[in-house]
Amino acid sequence: MPSVASAAAVITGFSRVPPFARGLVRDMRVRWACEEIGRPYRMELIDAFAPRSAEYRARQPFGQVPAFTDGNVDLFESGAILLYLGEQDESLLPHAGETRWKAISWLFAALNSVEPMLMQIVNLDVFNAGKDWAAAARPNVVELATARLKSLSDALGGREWLAGPFTIADIAMVTVLRNLNHTDILAGFPNVAGYKARGEARPAFRSALDAQLVELDRGDSA
Amino acid sequence: MPSVASAAAVITGFSRVPPFARGLVRDMRVRWACEEIGRPYRMELIDAFAPRSAEYRARQPFGQVPAFTDGNVDLFESGAILLYLGEQDESLLPHAGETRWKAISWLFAALNSVEPMLMQIVNLDVFNAGKDWAAAARPNVVELATARLKSLSDALGGREWLAGPFTIADIAMVTVLRNLNHTDILAGFPNVAGYKARGEARPAFRSALDAQLVELDRGDSA
Repeated sequence: MPSVASAAAVITGFSRVPPFARGLVRDMRVRWACEEIGRPYRMELIDAFAPRSAEYRARQPFGQVPAFTDGNVDLFESGAILLYLGEQDESLLPHAGETRWKAISWLFAALNSVEPMLMQIVNLDVFNAGKDWAAAARPNVVELATARLKSLSDALGGREWLAGPFTIADIAMVTVLRNLNHTDILAGFPNVAGYKARGEARPAFRSALDAQLVELDRGDSA
Repeated sequence: MPSVASAAAVITGFSRVPPFARGLVRDMRVRWACEEIGRPYRMELIDAFAPRSAEYRARQPFGQVPAFTDGNVDLFESGAILLYLGEQDESLLPHAGETRWKAISWLFAALNSVEPMLMQIVNLDVFNAGKDWAAAARPNVVELATARLKSLSDALGGREWLAGPFTIADIAMVTVLRNLNHTDILAGFPNVAGYKARGEARPAFRSALDAQLVELDRGDSA
């Protein structure tokens, strides 16, 4: 059996997506983490517009991306994959102590306390655009999201990253915040907007984003 | 410094909540995990109806419960606390191998792929009951939740627990599913309803639930 660190990682992503999803698909999180630690990976792309096969559902019960395998483990859910990669490299997650658990708390916060509120806005604005009920429901959803962003802003203060050093929590939170790219809501929280921009300026983020966009261009022209 | 396993655990919860939240507050997850492994804990209760203090926000940035401390680490987010407790006892989470990562994948799935969809129903039915826009928005939200439950049902099949043995993933998923107690949506997925009932029948769940209800009764009559 190859060592965990050297095994080839395979990440699933989409070959084609609707325009709004370009650069936002959740395989970004795993690509970004791999780029940060120089871990080689290859993508396995499925068509977002086609029904998922039973084989794919066996790997990813909800039919989403990413799923992940490296010959040692099969994983689904971007949060689980980030934790797995973080456990292999201290530059993504300290192995022990207070910073490790602070990062893990923030990882779950990004995915359970912030992302759900932001995705409700995406659901209304993107998947239900133009519907009367969606317009009527939006103020409540924006209020809920704004409250969470206010809490995030207060907790972040002037710090560079959520847990002290850069960690998997920041990969999760920055990619979560990008779901509001189609709105100006983050403008109300300059320190959060600055934090997001810091994440997006990292070379590993840029590489991951470029790779996703190149592959989606290729899928669109295929 | 006391050993991690012997340090006294402190979990935050609410002293009073609106009626619908009785037995559903997320400290249930942490109480349940502690009861499963016989880990002593004490509760620190705050009033759900009062504004959160700056001191509490420093422990729990979103002002939610539970937060957790045991003298070694301070944690927030029920998912992070479940992971921490799981790492201390194999009866909640195997220490290594495929089952560990399957359980962690399902833990994140419960909190990021299932709970957000179910909480949208709670948001409409409970927090916005009687509003015209909430009634108009509900079919879309029920459709999204039902699709996730269908995926969960297909993945669960006839298995007893999500990852093979009982794990923290089941504590998360069963408590997530309880957010639909006010609806009959789970009746459409008998194997999921049976799975939830199996979780709720565990003595550790009963102890945790009884403890939360007793404390809320005390808070209401104070």
